[in-house]
Amino acid sequence: MTGSALVERTIDWDDGAITIIDQTMLPGELRMLRIEDADALAASIKRLAVRGAMALGVAGALGVALAAQRAARTGDDVAAAVDRAASVLASARPTAVNLSVGVRRVVEAARGGADAALAEALRVRDEDIAANRSIGERGADFLAGRRRFLTHCNAGALAGVEWGTALSVIGAMHERKSVDEVFVAETRPLLQGARLTAWELGRQGIPYRVIVDGAGASLILGGRVDAVVVGADRIAANGDVANKIGTLAHALAAKRAGIPFVVAAPESTIDLHTASGSDIPIEERDEDEVLHAAGVRTAPQGARALNLAFDVTPADLVTAIVTERRVIG
Amino acid sequence: MTGSALVERTIDWDDGAITIIDQTMLPGELRMLRIEDADALAASIKRLAVRGAMALGVAGALGVALAAQRAARTGDDVAAAVDRAASVLASARPTAVNLSVGVRRVVEAARGGADAALAEALRVRDEDIAANRSIGERGADFLAGRRRFLTHCNAGALAGVEWGTALSVIGAMHERKSVDEVFVAETRPLLQGARLTAWELGRQGIPYRVIVDGAGASLILGGRVDAVVVGADRIAANGDVANKIGTLAHALAAKRAGIPFVVAAPESTIDLHTASGSDIPIEERDEDEVLHAAGVRTAPQGARALNLAFDVTPADLVTAIVTERRVIG
Repeated sequence: MTGSALVERTIDWDDGAITIIDQTMLPGELRMLRIEDADALAASIKRLAVRGAMALGVAGALGVALAAQRAARTGDDVAAAVDRAASVLASARPTAVNLSVGVRRVVEAARGGADAALAEALRVRDEDIAANRSIGERGADFLAGRRRFLTHCNAGALAGVEWGTALSVIGAMHERKSVDEVFVAETRPLLQGARLTAWELGRQGIPYRVIVDGAGASLILGGRVDAVVVGADRIAANGDVANKIGTLAHALAAKRAGIPFVVAAPESTIDLHTASGSDIPIEERDEDEVLHAAGVRTAPQGARALNLAFDVTPADLVTAIVTERRVIG
Repeated sequence: MTGSALVERTIDWDDGAITIIDQTMLPGELRMLRIEDADALAASIKRLAVRGAMALGVAGALGVALAAQRAARTGDDVAAAVDRAASVLASARPTAVNLSVGVRRVVEAARGGADAALAEALRVRDEDIAANRSIGERGADFLAGRRRFLTHCNAGALAGVEWGTALSVIGAMHERKSVDEVFVAETRPLLQGARLTAWELGRQGIPYRVIVDGAGASLILGGRVDAVVVGADRIAANGDVANKIGTLAHALAAKRAGIPFVVAAPESTIDLHTASGSDIPIEERDEDEVLHAAGVRTAPQGARALNLAFDVTPADLVTAIVTERRVIG
């Protein structure tokens, strides 16, 4: 991997503002948003214009820095602005531990002023890029010899700044000419797999096919997948993994089939303050996401839905957690 | 259950023609189709206007009778018309064993002429209605005490003539005031759960919520489901069950959670000529069904998909198979 999988960074700092790729427009359109304050950023996080564990970490960091910089420029109280931004941002996606980690790091640094806050936020960004590359290489080492993969949701460059996690592993395998095919679970309700992962893999020339989420277990037990590689939104101290709803079913199938179920995630995703998966708050999102598909109503009028954004894969189903520093498991 | 769950029968015989509910129009519109020849029926089967194991059995039977009746009316060779219809119909959905069973029964009877063929086809229809009621009562006995269910796809009245199989069980439980909630997996790619099962449960006043297919495992392992109840497209001699893609993941979760995974299906679904699940031909459908949701393109242009219509749940994951005659397992 000698360059980013994407031409534009998923999230970045540009001359006093935050730029993000609006992922709700993909794969139809590559639209960049310029964000000028923390409230707008929190709104973008809520509507999933920016998403993915690491991108959210960088968003949290840059968002606090943005508030500090603005306050310094307008002569407002930097500490108060930082506190307010931290609170708005951390609550935008409660399950994503990286978001609050990113927020906290820059809140801390902001004691040294708005410029110190910005410097720290840019460090969060640069560390993320380096960590993702490292995860990719380490994961590819771990999976050497395997050629057919299944992934869920989007743990790619679009979920970070560059590279991603699960897709960083697959990208590194591709660099080593070791990928025959990637099965991309479409990831209902919001279809991050079909929309985002397919788009990223296509741009990199990695062969893939989209499947419905329910097909994963069948392909895995049918001997058509050599390893499952996914990202994580939060990893508890005992190794339980919260990730996009639908992940758990692939893990159950991988266990039965005896193939590796690998979680690729930065160290910051591991939350030692959370003892086990049952302590992870699971975001419940709007019913309408389930009652519609691609914007079209699917269920009868009056239908109700339950829309849990994440599930928890118990540690005993996880073969390995690959971080930028180590392989756990 | 003192009357049908539906006002119109899913499929029926009406004065020289077959009537079907066009299920591709649900839940938006209840449209009846009048079908005058076997080719039109085969086309309706292929585009899933009529679907579901038992409805297909009745369709196969009525379709052959229709061809026989037409030939008799126009003075054509009944035997030749029956042979041709049998071949067209049996190949319309190769995985559905009931379809070919229904076809074969009426092919046999047609040796006695067109009226004998029709009489046999109407017997197939009436036996289906009685069998489905019996499955419902038997299944409800088996699941006594359980109150929260998960089902996949549509094994309801719309998959039969009346009642259905899995939903006949849930309907019987509802009659006994034993249903707190049914989780309805939407069943991508064609959303039979969100469109059809939700519509049926709503009409019967049974409380339900739609979920994405990937959420099943999480609800099951989270202790929010007391039993999984599904239909079957074919059951092999060893007890392996072919059903709509996505079923297997729920079965894996039910096994781990220690809750019953119950397959409700008529005896005709059990195919003793098929030794095990690996001998069941799995229909591969058009990629576009996966690359679109509710008619809207979701994946990037140029994306490929794999669209397996069914998966196979191994017998050791199946707690019980409930038929109109017995509980197996």
